[in-house]
Amino acid sequence: MMKTTIDENLKECMEACLRCLKECNFCYNACLQEQDIDMMRECIRLDRECAEICALAASAISRNSPFMKEICLLCAQICEACGQECAKHEHHEHCKRCAEICFQCAEACKKMAS
Amino acid sequence: MMKTTIDENLKECMEACLRCLKECNFCYNACLQEQDIDMMRECIRLDRECAEICALAASAISRNSPFMKEICLLCAQICEACGQECAKHEHHEHCKRCAEICFQCAEACKKMAS
Amino acid sequence: MMKTTIDENLKECMEACLRCLKECNFCYNACLQEQDIDMMRECIRLDRECAEICALAASAISRNSPFMKEICLLCAQICEACGQECAKHEHHEHCKRCAEICFQCAEACKKMAS
Amino acid sequence: MMKTTIDENLKECMEACLRCLKECNFCYNACLQEQDIDMMRECIRLDRECAEICALAASAISRNSPFMKEICLLCAQICEACGQECAKHEHHEHCKRCAEICFQCAEACKKMAS
Repeated sequence: MMKTTIDENLKECMEACLRCLKECNFCYNACLQEQDIDMMRECIRLDRECAEICALAASAISRNSPFMKEICLLCAQICEACGQECAKHEHHEHCKRCAEICFQCAEACKKMAS
Repeated sequence: MMKTTIDENLKECMEACLRCLKECNFCYNACLQEQDIDMMRECIRLDRECAEICALAASAISRNSPFMKEICLLCAQICEACGQECAKHEHHEHCKRCAEICFQCAEACKKMAS
Repeated sequence: MMKTTIDENLKECMEACLRCLKECNFCYNACLQEQDIDMMRECIRLDRECAEICALAASAISRNSPFMKEICLLCAQICEACGQECAKHEHHEHCKRCAEICFQCAEACKKMAS
Repeated sequence: MMKTTIDENLKECMEACLRCLKECNFCYNACLQEQDIDMMRECIRLDRECAEICALAASAISRNSPFMKEICLLCAQICEACGQECAKHEHHEHCKRCAEICFQCAEACKKMAS
């Protein structure tokens, strides 16, 4: 039968990925402007990595990709790494918020793939 | 001064792009399953084109890209082409809805870039 | 120590991914124009899936992503699925060639990640 | 008539984009590891911008996108901006090489679109 709706579980995961994509790119931009950029190298790098896999994951879900689960499992892993890096810089409001969103996205991805 | 917020105009455009990305991918998947796929060739093609530029545009805004306006102007053009193609297939609910979202996104992109 | 070169193994894998990205997109375009498009639905879909993960994989290697191995393992899996689908349509020259390139890319990705 | 080959002009442009994608990501990674990262902020940012539009442009050509010319014109503009930024840091070998490749890609894109 033709699949014409996206179930709630998938939708929740897709929205979590889009939120995380935005937050990681926002944090990336802010990190690039921080005075202590020397400390932010890994955060800049991981924000980009995370934004890219979140974009792929959200797009994969919305196009009903046969690999959406595998992509989301990888996404969860990268979100966790990014969240852990951001959590080291919680004195920056953008990193603190990004860490939270990353961990939420990791949870949503793992829940979806299970 | 460091830019730490996204203004309303940009945010609206970014959200329109994300909505359009989802709708185009949804329409792409539905078109690939339609019985009359022979008629949907251009729709499948343009849905993908549109989803990809919308992803780039939303990401560009969220990372404060110096080229966000140029990217959104191109996005508006592709959204209009996709919307016009989808509008030819309004008997398919997914195409009808996709056309509407594409035209809205084109407007949001043009408004943002002006 | 700062890493300023890409080793041969990685470079080979990156080039295989770029070749596969091109071939999958080429096959996608050709499939969209085939008379028997009804038979090519899964090929169109998988060509796009494969092109997107190959783009991510090649980009990940070139930017020294900490997740390049994980991304390439997923890439190998999607390349194999795409190659198997293309192999069903070997009477189309583009599918035949795409299947070969997909399998080569899968091998290169697995070798790199091991 | 079905288009089954990519003409030389397009192929040259596609290869220039892929070369530029690799070089920009390579420069991005190297910049993120430079001691004087404080000076490299714009280079990191533009390397990413350029890599992303080059990826889109190469993919657009390979899938015979109806918007390949418009995408390549935008790509040329971003390549030039990235090349100009990289040219300011020619004491870094990776920036020097990246500037050259960016300018070559800008030329190829403009030639293709004309």
